[in-house]
Amino acid sequence: MAIGYWLSAIAIACGPANSTRMHPTRLIEYEEASDEVRKVYDDIMATRKVDKVNNFWKALANHPVTLRRTWDSLKEVMAPGGALDPLTKELIYIAVSVTNNCEYCIRSHTKAAAKGGLSPEAFGELQAVIAMANETNRLANGYQVPVD
Amino acid sequence: MAIGYWLSAIAIACGPANSTRMHPTRLIEYEEASDEVRKVYDDIMATRKVDKVNNFWKALANHPVTLRRTWDSLKEVMAPGGALDPLTKELIYIAVSVTNNCEYCIRSHTKAAAKGGLSPEAFGELQAVIAMANETNRLANGYQVPVD
Amino acid sequence: MAIGYWLSAIAIACGPANSTRMHPTRLIEYEEASDEVRKVYDDIMATRKVDKVNNFWKALANHPVTLRRTWDSLKEVMAPGGALDPLTKELIYIAVSVTNNCEYCIRSHTKAAAKGGLSPEAFGELQAVIAMANETNRLANGYQVPVD
Amino acid sequence: MAIGYWLSAIAIACGPANSTRMHPTRLIEYEEASDEVRKVYDDIMATRKVDKVNNFWKALANHPVTLRRTWDSLKEVMAPGGALDPLTKELIYIAVSVTNNCEYCIRSHTKAAAKGGLSPEAFGELQAVIAMANETNRLANGYQVPVD
Amino acid sequence: MAIGYWLSAIAIACGPANSTRMHPTRLIEYEEASDEVRKVYDDIMATRKVDKVNNFWKALANHPVTLRRTWDSLKEVMAPGGALDPLTKELIYIAVSVTNNCEYCIRSHTKAAAKGGLSPEAFGELQAVIAMANETNRLANGYQVPVD
Amino acid sequence: MAIGYWLSAIAIACGPANSTRMHPTRLIEYEEASDEVRKVYDDIMATRKVDKVNNFWKALANHPVTLRRTWDSLKEVMAPGGALDPLTKELIYIAVSVTNNCEYCIRSHTKAAAKGGLSPEAFGELQAVIAMANETNRLANGYQVPVD
Repeated sequence: MAIGYWLSAIAIACGPANSTRMHPTRLIEYEEASDEVRKVYDDIMATRKVDKVNNFWKALANHPVTLRRTWDSLKEVMAPGGALDPLTKELIYIAVSVTNNCEYCIRSHTKAAAKGGLSPEAFGELQAVIAMANETNRLANGYQVPVD
Repeated sequence: MAIGYWLSAIAIACGPANSTRMHPTRLIEYEEASDEVRKVYDDIMATRKVDKVNNFWKALANHPVTLRRTWDSLKEVMAPGGALDPLTKELIYIAVSVTNNCEYCIRSHTKAAAKGGLSPEAFGELQAVIAMANETNRLANGYQVPVD
Repeated sequence: MAIGYWLSAIAIACGPANSTRMHPTRLIEYEEASDEVRKVYDDIMATRKVDKVNNFWKALANHPVTLRRTWDSLKEVMAPGGALDPLTKELIYIAVSVTNNCEYCIRSHTKAAAKGGLSPEAFGELQAVIAMANETNRLANGYQVPVD
Repeated sequence: MAIGYWLSAIAIACGPANSTRMHPTRLIEYEEASDEVRKVYDDIMATRKVDKVNNFWKALANHPVTLRRTWDSLKEVMAPGGALDPLTKELIYIAVSVTNNCEYCIRSHTKAAAKGGLSPEAFGELQAVIAMANETNRLANGYQVPVD
Repeated sequence: MAIGYWLSAIAIACGPANSTRMHPTRLIEYEEASDEVRKVYDDIMATRKVDKVNNFWKALANHPVTLRRTWDSLKEVMAPGGALDPLTKELIYIAVSVTNNCEYCIRSHTKAAAKGGLSPEAFGELQAVIAMANETNRLANGYQVPVD
Repeated sequence: MAIGYWLSAIAIACGPANSTRMHPTRLIEYEEASDEVRKVYDDIMATRKVDKVNNFWKALANHPVTLRRTWDSLKEVMAPGGALDPLTKELIYIAVSVTNNCEYCIRSHTKAAAKGGLSPEAFGELQAVIAMANETNRLANGYQVPVD
């Protein structure tokens, strides 16, 4: 019974031919959402000046308290007007997501950065710094370099 | 014989009282360095306008070709004059190092960023974004959110 | 010859149109399995009261000693009757798999937990704790908080 | 000036003899804290029924908005009365922290779990499951096992 | 304009039916490549004695300086004639890629190792060691084992 | 009571001056070990031809079943006589440990590799390959390179 609720029946036509993978998360659309969830969706759309919410939020909506807290936190952390400008924050987000290899996050924040004005040249430099840092992190580990 | 060479005899007075840990890496000082290594050290000091090199380079000097290649790459990647300014690059470096939990790298790049003008407020925002990204990366993983 | 054996010829119809990706692992079905492998498959099915084994085991069957050792270890570690109940162990398994972003593991253990009675509300709390821990891990790293 | 403020002058007598490492974070004690910070400290002590706050919070106090948001989130996520009991949540926290190798987090949450009643036997099983999950995550990756 | 350039229009027919995902990277084919990029492609093909370059290089070609530096570094690091033979280096590459769960890297280096003569038995042992190391790494973390 | 048992009272004289950190794990010495544990210790010493066991095993001895299973698995996986020679297996172990930044594991396996004949030159090449793989893993992630 529990399974029927939260293991969504959207089959994904990807993978070996004889496989019908069940997607583990139901995406909650606005139309079927509770008032509590819609209130968050409305705030996301108003804050970002967009007319739909991403799958990330539709997935979190399965646990409304997590949806609300995550959105409130993200809104505060990524807000313009701080010491770091919004595009710099997106670059930091991408650096973390690439290091962790979170495909969803890499793609959504790369899109956000592109929309926010990141030039192809800056994107290339970003990836080079991320890669270099991952390299030298391991050289420091491997040689067990003592802190200066 | 091999062991004697590259397992350095610097005992570290840290850890349980009855432990005399051998540090796995000998740090190569300028005075004892080969010409090949000194050439890199000289370039590091000239480029960074400092009068000594960090332990990281003294450790890499055990394998001169890695020392030279890593410095050449880092110099190119972190050079001023690109699409991203040097301080932004340091923030990206910190984001990767914090995510990977490389103590040496966190400390040296935090120092570099402070020296480069990062304000305490900007440092706080940086850490908040890094932490938030690590959080939402796992929400995206855990809910297996499909790419939009 | 070696290649022909272990790079399986199952093409995956997923990805750019002009790509026919070779799957790197052949899945060993019961019918074609050696006695050594069948013995493990039989034990998995008997222990779990199921009538087929998952792809994970069919992949490990390419190296029977690893199949046997991994199953024996998992059976011992996840066995009921210990200090931690089986569902709690599944939650721990999910926490690790989400942190490492192992898609296969997230999906199979999420299924197992749902089957084991994990409620949607408990699933939501689980993800929230995993995410929060990943966040505060990085705050502790970034601020280099000394152990209390 | 900025450096003087947030790179604390607490030298750590650990590491090679000739090293006086600067700790990168100043810990904000109650006595010197602003009202905004004290309010959070008071809530932490009241909620946890303790008479001092851990270094983690004293470090976050350098960025009061992060201190406040992180505490509010943690308080909500770890609160008793949910679908998962508090000790199970601590186990999940430990699983993430061990996987990420966050020393501070491993130690503080291990202490919290011990205080919360985790038996030595349960601690042993917890570590075994964490280790096993990290092992099988890599077998799934290495064999590129397709989702069932 | 920037977006048009580096967010490629190759739709991927994989994922929920109503999704047309934009691939974030345009792959630069030889025919459309600049002289700077072609020079690297030519060196890759000559060094590896192959008549096409992999997608990895076609992606990096979006930032020619990264393409050139990465290829020069990889060529130097993976060159035959060193203290470690080329196949051993491929095994190390796979160990890192499996630990980080980089699908592209696992698949390309597994192919390279197979081509380089890795037997199915050696592949099985490699995966077993990688998995075991990931397991014992976490036991060392979880028990906070002090260095001997 | 539980706490008294498994939070060992070995204070570590390392860290801020006013800190007396409790080590979270008691190391079980041979003299105080149960017969079950001694049997494993004896096998470790006999197999490795050494006259003491490392801290890793003394820590695992807190959970004898994990001690026994981990040793049995490691003995099987690292045994000589397989398709990969023991030194190559140590290199793979180091590659994983450096990527995960497990200090204990890096140090113990570096020592083992040195003892097993790894030359300084080979050590340098090993670290270079590990670092390079961590770098290119992130370039593959960041550019979201599709599998060839």
